[in-house]
Amino acid sequence: MCEGFEGFMRLIKLVRDERVRGASWCGEKVVEAFLVLANKCVDLGKYMPIAVREALASNPTMASIYNVTYIASKLSDDREALINAMRRLKDYFRSAKELVAKNAVGIISGNVMTISYSSTVLTVLTKVKDGLGKVYVMVSKPGGEGVVMVKRLRGLGINAVPIHDTLVAKYVTHVDNVVMGADAIGKDGCVINKVGSYTLALLANQAGVDTYVATEIIKYHPERTCHNIEILSREFTVEGYGEVKEPVFEEVPTSLIKALITDYGITSPMYEDLLEMYRNFIKDYLTS
Amino acid sequence: MCEGFEGFMRLIKLVRDERVRGASWCGEKVVEAFLVLANKCVDLGKYMPIAVREALASNPTMASIYNVTYIASKLSDDREALINAMRRLKDYFRSAKELVAKNAVGIISGNVMTISYSSTVLTVLTKVKDGLGKVYVMVSKPGGEGVVMVKRLRGLGINAVPIHDTLVAKYVTHVDNVVMGADAIGKDGCVINKVGSYTLALLANQAGVDTYVATEIIKYHPERTCHNIEILSREFTVEGYGEVKEPVFEEVPTSLIKALITDYGITSPMYEDLLEMYRNFIKDYLTS
Repeated sequence: MCEGFEGFMRLIKLVRDERVRGASWCGEKVVEAFLVLANKCVDLGKYMPIAVREALASNPTMASIYNVTYIASKLSDDREALINAMRRLKDYFRSAKELVAKNAVGIISGNVMTISYSSTVLTVLTKVKDGLGKVYVMVSKPGGEGVVMVKRLRGLGINAVPIHDTLVAKYVTHVDNVVMGADAIGKDGCVINKVGSYTLALLANQAGVDTYVATEIIKYHPERTCHNIEILSREFTVEGYGEVKEPVFEEVPTSLIKALITDYGITSPMYEDLLEMYRNFIKDYLTS
Repeated sequence: MCEGFEGFMRLIKLVRDERVRGASWCGEKVVEAFLVLANKCVDLGKYMPIAVREALASNPTMASIYNVTYIASKLSDDREALINAMRRLKDYFRSAKELVAKNAVGIISGNVMTISYSSTVLTVLTKVKDGLGKVYVMVSKPGGEGVVMVKRLRGLGINAVPIHDTLVAKYVTHVDNVVMGADAIGKDGCVINKVGSYTLALLANQAGVDTYVATEIIKYHPERTCHNIEILSREFTVEGYGEVKEPVFEEVPTSLIKALITDYGITSPMYEDLLEMYRNFIKDYLTS
């Protein structure tokens, strides 16, 4: 008997269907799902393996989901510890972005280019807003979440403009730095992000402009390089044509990333440094 | 007194307002405009300088217009020679694409990627269609003419698919060659084409895929490198946001072009070879 399993699955389904909000939002929803389960399910031990499988399948690209699920599965024998850890992870998702933003001060400034919508990048740009010039935002088709980003930034008084994805080569020569979010960080420091991110980082590199990734360490995948992280494909409409199925994410290799700005510090994309940050994070949230 | 000047300007205005059809179509319309003028204008000598200025201003990016206008201006004292040259240029625009296509046989085959809509590339792909696999067409925002290209290709039974512009990095690794048209060829062999072309050629280069430019030699600009060819900007709508003003074209540097496939032969983008082809073309159409 497992009251709450239905509620768990309802939240997991939200994650599966989500198309705009990123890895933080999805991770937080999975935390909420485990909280519902831990609070209500009598047969927790029996249902946890199923819950873990469903959570992991909801979006295999996002390491935030992997890590929340990893912590939950480790605590599946101790309901109170599980509830405690999930509550603290809920706070984590609220506060980590602000820590990332603090670490970005002095790095992200001037004219900036970004891609798509990332709540972490939005928090960063809000924090450093007084030092910003113009913010060029790739529209980021398919999906076009860049328009959401532009509207939020303009709402904050930041001089953000959308650019069509083909215009990156031109405008990236006008900026001081590129900042993007991450849907996952591979174990060697590569980054999985919205399609177009590799092109953006490559063109920035060609123009001598540094690319920074602003991301919570919870998105680090301790076991997989980006090549081994499954990339989701979805149906999108090409205006005037019809449906096409295209991958939503792609890999940005470590060679194109100047540094990762995380809630646990700033690091060049190096295996050892990232792993240490990640271990500190797991220690902070697995033991209380 | 210049009957026909109004008709001339009507055609020039069509060129100025044209947004999908490329350099060949525009060049042909300018030819028609000079034919109207040559056939009807009594004070031809007096009106030619104005006509030349208006023609050149209609689209400063397109060297085809420059060359038609150059030939017309050289013959402005000899009405019959002018009419004769313009008639032969009209035929040129009809037949040159087919010559380009013939030269592309044995070069363009297998899986191919292209960008935007180019009538020259369309003629090439039609010619080599039996050797084609899948043709990936960048949607090419702003404008999105790639969708027109896909529809025409599919109408010919070619397996063409549109891809969003951010997907180039992924799919370019699946193709055997890239082929694009040109709005202008700079005097050193660089190419001006729809925005996104530089990114496409660069990503192809990174993936070890050759980029070919299929173009009539009339698009060669004998006096200007790409840096010195004026790039048109236009207002475009970003869906969900509003109007933005963006350049329509950009430069593809010679280092990223494997060869130019022209109606006067195939050449690597070298100054001397191109200039010789161009001189042969001018000789063929300026003297009769």
